[in-house]
Amino acid sequence: MGQPVGVIGVGVDAVDIDRFARSLARTPGMRTRLFTAQELADVAPRVDPVPALAARFAAREATMKALGLGLGAFGFHEVSVERQPSGRPTLVVTGRARELADDAGVQAWHLSLTHTATVAIAVVTAS
Amino acid sequence: MGQPVGVIGVGVDAVDIDRFARSLARTPGMRTRLFTAQELADVAPRVDPVPALAARFAAREATMKALGLGLGAFGFHEVSVERQPSGRPTLVVTGRARELADDAGVQAWHLSLTHTATVAIAVVTAS
Amino acid sequence: MGQPVGVIGVGVDAVDIDRFARSLARTPGMRTRLFTAQELADVAPRVDPVPALAARFAAREATMKALGLGLGAFGFHEVSVERQPSGRPTLVVTGRARELADDAGVQAWHLSLTHTATVAIAVVTAS
Repeated sequence: MGQPVGVIGVGVDAVDIDRFARSLARTPGMRTRLFTAQELADVAPRVDPVPALAARFAAREATMKALGLGLGAFGFHEVSVERQPSGRPTLVVTGRARELADDAGVQAWHLSLTHTATVAIAVVTAS
Repeated sequence: MGQPVGVIGVGVDAVDIDRFARSLARTPGMRTRLFTAQELADVAPRVDPVPALAARFAAREATMKALGLGLGAFGFHEVSVERQPSGRPTLVVTGRARELADDAGVQAWHLSLTHTATVAIAVVTAS
Repeated sequence: MGQPVGVIGVGVDAVDIDRFARSLARTPGMRTRLFTAQELADVAPRVDPVPALAARFAAREATMKALGLGLGAFGFHEVSVERQPSGRPTLVVTGRARELADDAGVQAWHLSLTHTATVAIAVVTAS
């Protein structure tokens, strides 16, 4: 071990932005239930933070898929997106999610996010 | 060899769900020509199986792309999607597709599927 | 070194095709500013080259993301898409982009492109 290894898992998730916006509008507590205070602060300066939040939700689902797990395998705050000073988004994996990743032998996470006006997409690799 | 290696190929494919639904409706034999009996059984309990079928079609295209091949390089039944008990989708690669993958040195496949109301997306890595 | 290694970075980018078509129509110089002569020649035989150009634009953005960099880190012509005789699209990385990739330890790029009628998507892995 300790050697760089191949791919352990890949995850992709797409979120319909309008639908996600309607869910957020309908359920005011959803923002703090899904996202960390840091994430909410990161997106706050945006004119419309919803696409960035949709992408962060997709990141959680993509991470679960990369671990071969279903929704509910870990808490929403246990995986979050942090922006590096370069702008690169990185996954922060803690708690039960971290234990599951360690069990799976994950040494490194890679994350990429994108959105158009209608859809947000996250791709995650575990290696 | 025998050592875990880096990425051999990546494939992404997106399928318009409405368009795919129209193709399936127009060509009744398309379901059995594209999908295995196991796949059709897997999606049968769904209220609307079309998005899951569109994702499985995207998985085949993404697999061909990960091998650097075009449509027609192998038969549609030679690559299929199997659900693990955990819910994780895995690729089953057989026949000519398996030979091509062996020739390319593929030791492991990873697959992830997603869909919104309008688009199904598959990402495949060969490593 | 010299050994195959794990994933260094992943990048995904989605481009709204209608929006991209309007930008191209509005700014005639954009095609040659964004794309190489080879790319423009490659897509020229298509009835509608816009989706293929949108995918090639997405490829540049996905490459920047795989390197953890923002738009503007390198010139648009320094990363381009070349079709292999098999049809497989490959990334051509030159100039400043090549230096940044070398600094990051990238030994191999993998690229996959897809589009529906509405969205073009590129996924890039650096390993």
